[in-house]
Amino acid sequence: MARIGRRPGPSTTRSALLEAARRRFAEGGYEATSVRAIAADAGVDPAVAIHFFGSKEGLFRAAVGWPFDPASVFERLAGLERADLAPELVRLFLGFWDDPTTGAALSALLRTAMTQAPTAALLRAFVAEHMLGRVGPLIGGADAALRLDLAVSQMLGVAVVRHVLQLEPIASAPLDELVAWLTPTVARYLVGVEASAPPPPPDRP
Amino acid sequence: MARIGRRPGPSTTRSALLEAARRRFAEGGYEATSVRAIAADAGVDPAVAIHFFGSKEGLFRAAVGWPFDPASVFERLAGLERADLAPELVRLFLGFWDDPTTGAALSALLRTAMTQAPTAALLRAFVAEHMLGRVGPLIGGADAALRLDLAVSQMLGVAVVRHVLQLEPIASAPLDELVAWLTPTVARYLVGVEASAPPPPPDRP
Repeated sequence: MARIGRRPGPSTTRSALLEAARRRFAEGGYEATSVRAIAADAGVDPAVAIHFFGSKEGLFRAAVGWPFDPASVFERLAGLERADLAPELVRLFLGFWDDPTTGAALSALLRTAMTQAPTAALLRAFVAEHMLGRVGPLIGGADAALRLDLAVSQMLGVAVVRHVLQLEPIASAPLDELVAWLTPTVARYLVGVEASAPPPPPDRP
Repeated sequence: MARIGRRPGPSTTRSALLEAARRRFAEGGYEATSVRAIAADAGVDPAVAIHFFGSKEGLFRAAVGWPFDPASVFERLAGLERADLAPELVRLFLGFWDDPTTGAALSALLRTAMTQAPTAALLRAFVAEHMLGRVGPLIGGADAALRLDLAVSQMLGVAVVRHVLQLEPIASAPLDELVAWLTPTVARYLVGVEASAPPPPPDRP
């Protein structure tokens, strides 16, 4: 298939950028990695990287195969009342997994992360520095990071049981039923609300 | 390493039994599969299979690489007061993942299940027909299977975040702190108990 002597074209440049991005992000995490460094590794001007991927975040998403724009998700969450955060987050999270296109991409990403350490490191960097870093301020408190981890663990666990292991009855349960079950759990983790107790002050020590 | 002309010995018989068991269990599930059928596939007497693996359950565990004896776990759970079920289940589940030997085996099993459909089918058969089938009567109620699935999803999600993705701070959190956080969640799923206050993890400032 390779044409001998063909000059490096857009697909080669794109591949070189993605390869450099995967290595750089895995080594340095999201925040510490610059588009400039990735472009230099790929032997192109940073403007070329922006031309292809729009932004550092777009380059990151392409590198890990992340199937949706986190920014739009967090805009949506940031506009909610505190009490609406948990049900909306659960519905969005499980909705992405239930959607055939984004679900297949997330499933593939998780499979790869579970069998290849560099992808696991990338996913960790993305989730920790980028996604949880954005939601954290909506939660508040000294243990916001742990609370978010717990919420992610519950939602991810259902996604794995439902879509990867396909264990019944969760595999066939209606989305609404799962959202109803998971909302009190995620609400307790995120905002400390208990179904049978008055809500604690928002910023527990 | 292979010795040409070597006669089929115990290791060959064992391998043949395991291969037949994986195929039979994956196709028919745990309950519907007999040791007799597996032994016939492997060309040996059923007594040989029992000699190697002790029981149908032992053969199943060896076939999937399951690292502990579910019977002893369920004996322990069955002797508990209803209110003690959730914390003990969470501690056992996460304890098996935290233990280097059983944890490595569970992690390997999950990785394989996530990338190979036959192993996923085997794991599903084992969990659904064998493990959840044993715990179900301890829970009771028409939706016991869904409740158990939800509890498993929470505990498995933490195991994945902690040991496979190694996302902080769950990756480094003390076991006691995770047990304290997860117990009200699993209790709500299993026995419908709502905690009346957020869990005070033991070692937080």
